[in-house]
Amino acid sequence: MNREIPYKIYLEENEMPKQWYNVRADMKNKPAPILNPATMKPITVEELSPIFCTELAKQELDDTTPYFDIPQEILDFYRMYRPAPLVRAYCLEKKLGTPAHIYYKFEGNNTSGSHKLNSAIAQAYYAKKQGLKGVTTETGAGQWGTALSMACSYFDLDCQVYMVKVSYEQKPFRREVMRTYGANVTPSPSMLTEVGRKINAEFPGTTGSLGCAISEAVEAATAQEGYRYVLGSVLSQVLIHQTVIGLETKIALDKYGIKADTIIGCAGGGYNLGGLISPFAGEVLRGEANYDIIAVEPASCPSLTRGRYAYDFCDTGKICPLAKMYTLGSGFIPSANHAGGLRYHGMSSIVSQLYDDGILTARSVEQTEVFKAAQTFARIEGILPAPESSHAIKVAIDEALKCKETGEEKNIVFGLTGTGYFDMVAYQKFNDGDMKDYIPTDEELEKSFATLPKISL
Amino acid sequence: MNREIPYKIYLEENEMPKQWYNVRADMKNKPAPILNPATMKPITVEELSPIFCTELAKQELDDTTPYFDIPQEILDFYRMYRPAPLVRAYCLEKKLGTPAHIYYKFEGNNTSGSHKLNSAIAQAYYAKKQGLKGVTTETGAGQWGTALSMACSYFDLDCQVYMVKVSYEQKPFRREVMRTYGANVTPSPSMLTEVGRKINAEFPGTTGSLGCAISEAVEAATAQEGYRYVLGSVLSQVLIHQTVIGLETKIALDKYGIKADTIIGCAGGGYNLGGLISPFAGEVLRGEANYDIIAVEPASCPSLTRGRYAYDFCDTGKICPLAKMYTLGSGFIPSANHAGGLRYHGMSSIVSQLYDDGILTARSVEQTEVFKAAQTFARIEGILPAPESSHAIKVAIDEALKCKETGEEKNIVFGLTGTGYFDMVAYQKFNDGDMKDYIPTDEELEKSFATLPKISL
Repeated sequence: MNREIPYKIYLEENEMPKQWYNVRADMKNKPAPILNPATMKPITVEELSPIFCTELAKQELDDTTPYFDIPQEILDFYRMYRPAPLVRAYCLEKKLGTPAHIYYKFEGNNTSGSHKLNSAIAQAYYAKKQGLKGVTTETGAGQWGTALSMACSYFDLDCQVYMVKVSYEQKPFRREVMRTYGANVTPSPSMLTEVGRKINAEFPGTTGSLGCAISEAVEAATAQEGYRYVLGSVLSQVLIHQTVIGLETKIALDKYGIKADTIIGCAGGGYNLGGLISPFAGEVLRGEANYDIIAVEPASCPSLTRGRYAYDFCDTGKICPLAKMYTLGSGFIPSANHAGGLRYHGMSSIVSQLYDDGILTARSVEQTEVFKAAQTFARIEGILPAPESSHAIKVAIDEALKCKETGEEKNIVFGLTGTGYFDMVAYQKFNDGDMKDYIPTDEELEKSFATLPKISL
Repeated sequence: MNREIPYKIYLEENEMPKQWYNVRADMKNKPAPILNPATMKPITVEELSPIFCTELAKQELDDTTPYFDIPQEILDFYRMYRPAPLVRAYCLEKKLGTPAHIYYKFEGNNTSGSHKLNSAIAQAYYAKKQGLKGVTTETGAGQWGTALSMACSYFDLDCQVYMVKVSYEQKPFRREVMRTYGANVTPSPSMLTEVGRKINAEFPGTTGSLGCAISEAVEAATAQEGYRYVLGSVLSQVLIHQTVIGLETKIALDKYGIKADTIIGCAGGGYNLGGLISPFAGEVLRGEANYDIIAVEPASCPSLTRGRYAYDFCDTGKICPLAKMYTLGSGFIPSANHAGGLRYHGMSSIVSQLYDDGILTARSVEQTEVFKAAQTFARIEGILPAPESSHAIKVAIDEALKCKETGEEKNIVFGLTGTGYFDMVAYQKFNDGDMKDYIPTDEELEKSFATLPKISL
């Protein structure tokens, strides 16, 4: 079947996935267990439960169940903004003069502006189901906080967001979106928590950090009856929820008889990437198909391409469980790259293991090139992409241009995770010709590798 | 046929409209002819052509041709961001406890964030086809400028935008989106035009006005070889292009055998409203159906509900043709209502005539109530609506609550013209409880009616 392919493939509601996929079930080499930072031993559901919702703690540690049913309430919410379209980039193909067929899965058509909502609604649902009053979280630029605010508002849950103070002040729009959805947004460090008061006393006038905001959110969750802490990345449960991206993509491709050759995603913590590629990686793991899967990361924060595969802290505050992952060391301070969502020292333990096993490859790109690709894409395909997503665009264009040389009619699929409406400061720098690239030196990386913990299991 | 209705109705590409509809062809009482401000006589295509593209000038004056073919190039562009979904607001219905079925046509899923792109791409196409080098326009908050930048970038046309200086400085994000699409954005008043230099000399340090920006854009268009001036509202051609909204809505409803009872749109100049209601008004005019069509305007700028039906200038600068319309007088200074797109003294001549003939009714609403409705909608349906669109939401909720009282299972359809991402200053005021309402007094209106020109045809 190869009927003419429309610009946008929308699944019918009855074609939408009803289960998330847990790729760990199909991995012979399972990701190494995550460790309790207090004991440095593999953590248990019981140990996770005081901080995280119990059902989510179970998903976190389950590496054998291949599918989790998506509860009806979440399916209902998904239907408000999903299915996300799989778009055939006809105009981009024409502009590039490539015989390749380019497709992108667009996750930006919701008010949070990105894929983050896919996991936020799941986490809010399990919190509600557990009878909790509310959840706490941290947010940097505000994308995750926005998604969680939307999800909590839908389930009538209290949502307490600790927002890094500098962002709280510099990104008032994001803050107001969260407030419109009823969230309680507090600049961090605050005077509401012990850790916040301590940091404020030690560093008067500090503008905060993500590590500090995490610490405050965790303290707030454990200090209040009926609250738990939720996270938009770092954890495997987030990757599982994000598989709705890849599952929809696969169903849409199958519907039109399209076999993907190359699958490309941007990688920060690896959660949207993992969600996109899981169903395809599963086929590879089961020996059913082959794909060229490419993770794209910023050259300024090259955890896959230049990192070490080792146990490390997932957060600079060393509160979250430790994971074995490709990492630059939790002491790595990324440069002020404008793709805020990709400024993370490590990589999902699932993606790390798949990478180590050769199921996917990785490439790093510099931000000026990324913004050039973003501009090209915006002008031709209409959508103004997020800087993070534009990493995938850059490599998709590179691959399409290779096909132009070789004449290959490859099917290239990439993830367009979100829109760039709140990233115009970065675009302005690019428009003004003031954007700089930054690649850490080997010496700098050696220094941050030295922050890796010594673990012997 | 009444199969189960999905959350979102997307037309297949082959179901999308291939013609725009010109409702004037079905009107027994045609809108009065527009007048040349220099002669105060009905204007001709020849007189319009030095300023506007010739094909658009023809569409402007044609009140007999019922359908205009949409050129293939525009259909191709439409396919990148259309069809817009017709959404069944299941969650809102449930929350309100109403037996009514609520549908909304969502035009916000494109980077310009609104319906404006529907006409921008058409106007850019005709400019390109005429062999022009570029177009000029003015923009206030930047929504129209963004849409036009996107359209011009697609057709590789030069785009010169005169942006009111205060917005240029206060809305740098909008400005940068336009620049990313390659537009030349100039703060108005500028030193590039005679009128700009004159205003700068007379009022040093002025932050500009829309009237002044229009004057500069018109001068720039006529002063440069191969340029024309384009407009995002005011003209009937814009309303014609916007009928793609109503036509898609009608096809989607028909596909599921749904008969609309009530159709609601927000009305500033009346161009999105006119586009939404045209196909339905056409049925009423031809005696084929009846609908309760409601235009919703801000109480602070009540051109339909409290204006006069008279010839007036369409712009404060008195450069554009005059139209017979419901108007508050071109000297009316609207209060600082946050729905910038509805702050216009007049109303499309087509909508005005339909209103005068009783084909539609009008209602005015106050902005605090509008933001309450916006917040409710955002929290339940996920989408953060533009303040303009939220006027329609307010009345749709009112109508649904009436059905709750009467038990009627009405089908209520409203236009959700865009998103509110760039309106967070207004939301912040609302969130902080600092929003005020403003209704002009009769005395104030009498004063502005005194600015109406004396015309005897």
